[in-house]
Amino acid sequence: MDVGALSPAEARARFREGLVTPTSGWSLGYAQANLIIVPKDYAFDVLLFAQRNPKPCPLLGVLDAGETSGPLLEGGDIRTDVPAYTVYEDGDLVDTVTSLEDHWRDDLVTFIVGCSFTFETPLLEAGIPIAHIDQGRNVPMYRTSVRAESAGRMSGPLVVSMRPIPASQVADAVRISARYPAVHGAPVHVGDPGAIGIADLDAPDFGQSVQIPEGTIPVFWACGVTPQAAVMESRPPIAFGHAPGHMLITDAKDSQYAIP
Amino acid sequence: MDVGALSPAEARARFREGLVTPTSGWSLGYAQANLIIVPKDYAFDVLLFAQRNPKPCPLLGVLDAGETSGPLLEGGDIRTDVPAYTVYEDGDLVDTVTSLEDHWRDDLVTFIVGCSFTFETPLLEAGIPIAHIDQGRNVPMYRTSVRAESAGRMSGPLVVSMRPIPASQVADAVRISARYPAVHGAPVHVGDPGAIGIADLDAPDFGQSVQIPEGTIPVFWACGVTPQAAVMESRPPIAFGHAPGHMLITDAKDSQYAIP
Repeated sequence: MDVGALSPAEARARFREGLVTPTSGWSLGYAQANLIIVPKDYAFDVLLFAQRNPKPCPLLGVLDAGETSGPLLEGGDIRTDVPAYTVYEDGDLVDTVTSLEDHWRDDLVTFIVGCSFTFETPLLEAGIPIAHIDQGRNVPMYRTSVRAESAGRMSGPLVVSMRPIPASQVADAVRISARYPAVHGAPVHVGDPGAIGIADLDAPDFGQSVQIPEGTIPVFWACGVTPQAAVMESRPPIAFGHAPGHMLITDAKDSQYAIP
Repeated sequence: MDVGALSPAEARARFREGLVTPTSGWSLGYAQANLIIVPKDYAFDVLLFAQRNPKPCPLLGVLDAGETSGPLLEGGDIRTDVPAYTVYEDGDLVDTVTSLEDHWRDDLVTFIVGCSFTFETPLLEAGIPIAHIDQGRNVPMYRTSVRAESAGRMSGPLVVSMRPIPASQVADAVRISARYPAVHGAPVHVGDPGAIGIADLDAPDFGQSVQIPEGTIPVFWACGVTPQAAVMESRPPIAFGHAPGHMLITDAKDSQYAIP
């Protein structure tokens, strides 16, 4: 099966049928997205958190309370169409599941958040190597000592993804990713991990570690797992996310998020 | 009094003391903003409306329920620091007042929305004439036949501001305003007013008409009055806005909303 050639609807159907796999490389050219799902009572705080933190939380769409489909997943079902979901109770990660059908409530509001996978294709096309792809791993993600802007009951650390970039290509990586503000945009930090509170690059908080190739420098982008970290700290009674690396594949083309 | 040289805090103090005047030309270099203020019960719908309509509703900031000051108006008071406010009851404009102190409730949430005044300075600096400034008038604004994206109970028409631009400078006006996505960005329409449901340029729905200089073409930008038009259609029990042209003068510099 050439998973890169599947349409988003075909990919979502596989996951709906029960397939569990990271989505890197699936439905090439289509935007993958992070999820955060909370009860309506918490939705204003999450939406305001996103508005105040546009780099880690660029919203591609919001489903109304109880709504399970929308323009980003035509004919799809947000409860089943992602390979794996995280379940948070009072901020604790209590389970990872392949369907939210048993958990669904009519007051749940779904936030669909842009993902840096979208700008990896143009980085590759510009000849910039992506270590975690070359090494067949999930991108490493880290909690930082930088605080996101709080909103109501939502507060937490900025989470970043890291890609080691050859020193001569850092400028190109900045320029290219900056053209995609809807999917985290330009890096938030270049270089010393310790300056943003990352003690050990080999011990990411989410995803997998990568080997740092010689001659590269770590470059950090704001990450869509940030709202899940805020959920863990802010402890709403119930919340859901995507399992890291197991994204929603949307009907939107990556190219539609490039600014001209 | 050189109103252009006043600091934003000084300007707000004049309005707090009771001065009522349009704010065009005040505190040059500082961002002026539209207001929409609704009860907390309506705030998620307004915030989602803004998220779904970023061109007319670019949020510069949101004050928490009951909050009357914030980083955009340090030491200020949102209830008194704007020259004039509109009062809506069940969607009807029932009053224009110079203070919201008698109306204030602890559940009111304030949305501070970018204003196209911010990109008028760089347009002027590029040699592009702004007719309503030359003619000493408020910018003309129109309800269009284009519907904004609905969000919960909030729905309404896109409202636009219009500036007649010399044909040879339309391209520059597009390029320059596009650098300011946080204050409406690039135009939404160039040319024929009828195509977006505007019957008569001489009869704006808000602001004042301008004389169209020869050799110019009407250029339309999304306008921050759009959420007030949605309030008029969606009929929340109570809501407030700024009186057209009587803006909040913020502490943010215009230049900070330019993308590099």
